[in-house]
Amino acid sequence: MKMNDLLSLMKNRRSIRNFTKKPVKKETIDRIISAAYFAPTAARIQGYHIIVIDDISLKERIREVCEQGEKDWVISRPNAVKDNILHLPGFSFQKKFLTDVPVLLIVSTDPNNPNIPYAIESCWIAISFMLLEIENLGLGTLTYTPSICLTDRRMELNKVVNLPTDDYIQTILPIGHYTEKPERVEVSIEQKVHHNQYGNLFFNINMVKNKLGNFS
Amino acid sequence: MKMNDLLSLMKNRRSIRNFTKKPVKKETIDRIISAAYFAPTAARIQGYHIIVIDDISLKERIREVCEQGEKDWVISRPNAVKDNILHLPGFSFQKKFLTDVPVLLIVSTDPNNPNIPYAIESCWIAISFMLLEIENLGLGTLTYTPSICLTDRRMELNKVVNLPTDDYIQTILPIGHYTEKPERVEVSIEQKVHHNQYGNLFFNINMVKNKLGNFS
Repeated sequence: MKMNDLLSLMKNRRSIRNFTKKPVKKETIDRIISAAYFAPTAARIQGYHIIVIDDISLKERIREVCEQGEKDWVISRPNAVKDNILHLPGFSFQKKFLTDVPVLLIVSTDPNNPNIPYAIESCWIAISFMLLEIENLGLGTLTYTPSICLTDRRMELNKVVNLPTDDYIQTILPIGHYTEKPERVEVSIEQKVHHNQYGNLFFNINMVKNKLGNFS
Repeated sequence: MKMNDLLSLMKNRRSIRNFTKKPVKKETIDRIISAAYFAPTAARIQGYHIIVIDDISLKERIREVCEQGEKDWVISRPNAVKDNILHLPGFSFQKKFLTDVPVLLIVSTDPNNPNIPYAIESCWIAISFMLLEIENLGLGTLTYTPSICLTDRRMELNKVVNLPTDDYIQTILPIGHYTEKPERVEVSIEQKVHHNQYGNLFFNINMVKNKLGNFS
């Protein structure tokens, strides 16, 4: 692989919320899952579950439960938190992407099982590998975590796909084609990278934007 | 990027524990950090810290704290758990890799800060992106999480790098050159991938090894 290709792929990836209804091939889904298959997990225990959803009535039911759960959850937040949520980039109570895409991948793990060390950490490495393979295939996705999964009503969503109580849904990845990507938004990490001691910054402020952001 | 290149990169990545002492360029570290820079984080909040360690006495101190913390922790486990740990692939109380490599990256986040949504999840996406860029640069690493970070003695390690109490070390990535890679060990995920309903397997058992494992 050419040295800059991977950083370009990472740089070009965006969170996609607007999908077309164009189908995705079975082989494409296999490839995306193979990225999870190649991901390292603690003690080589693949402690996650992936549910491939292509049934339209299931997607509709998932959307319904997620939208209602999110409305109830946001309304229950203190006003300041509520305002923050409503102003998040791309935030909407409408989860149209859940029914627009041909395929959803529900990824779950059991963080309380002593036989699955570092369950959440390992699960997110697998999710990250899939994010990059989805981008590599020219498709779009979003690391969508339904608010209802953070609440004691999380079983409403588990029940839709018959997922055991012990499993916690980590994300639902909508997978599909898109017509355009959102602009890249620059972030700032110069305060986040330190040299030998916390507080001793590794980069000067201009270096991050001028150098890190231009590697690809 | 060629379609199979990314899956090959993922497939060829291994957890490396034996490093040479060959130095790593500053530009290489910048590239690895730029992979974290391009990783998506919840609400675009880069809620992690990365500490680049290249000071040898600090690496020695980190190794000492990690080794002692792990011995004490393993000894305190019930016998069955202790046996499991001692038989983990590549397990040793000696953390030679912490002092052999030219650079350690300590990655931390604050999972209890309400202003950092999905702190651990986002942090592990950034770590995953770095894992792949390290492989892409022809270098080796290991997602090493010191046992002491799971205990109430975790501040012993935080103090070595002056990391605030609220920050939890997620991993220490040793970064360096290696002379050989361990063999690839096949894992089994056919029981982990479901179709529309949990329990309705997506792949037949032979397909995973014959197909998923051969994409690259």
